[in-house]
Amino acid sequence: MPQHVVELIGSVAACLTTFAFLPQVMKVWRTRSVRDISLITYATMTLGVFLWFVYGVGIGSFPVIAANAITFVLSLFILIMKIRHSR
Amino acid sequence: MPQHVVELIGSVAACLTTFAFLPQVMKVWRTRSVRDISLITYATMTLGVFLWFVYGVGIGSFPVIAANAITFVLSLFILIMKIRHSR
Repeated sequence: MPQHVVELIGSVAACLTTFAFLPQVMKVWRTRSVRDISLITYATMTLGVFLWFVYGVGIGSFPVIAANAITFVLSLFILIMKIRHSR
Repeated sequence: MPQHVVELIGSVAACLTTFAFLPQVMKVWRTRSVRDISLITYATMTLGVFLWFVYGVGIGSFPVIAANAITFVLSLFILIMKIRHSR
């Protein structure tokens, strides 16, 4: 595969996975319904992307820092809504 | 930060984000309830991790290939369950 195609695929992949949780955030915000959402999934994901963020700081990679900062905020929001709206 | 600490943090982060969807898979499998799950989130995530997988092949990185292959299967499973069990 040509190098520029590989880089393009990586960039599109990064955008998609970074913002993928945004529709879930909007759905949870709109419905306030979180029954089907897994608490452990979002607790694990939030901690995981936080550690990716720290890793990005450690290696001095701006793309890793930026992408995971965004995903951290989205994942944390879903986690907080899950905890708050679970009975 | 010492290099080995940075590498350890990156490895833990990779494990957490790779397997984070497993509890969501188990919850959806057990309950067959997917109302609160966002279709667009899992469609975007599934496509995104597939492209990360292709990127991993392109740069010849086994960790990127392996991690995203696992996440792809988990995310695709949730997506299929969402489509199948939505009314």
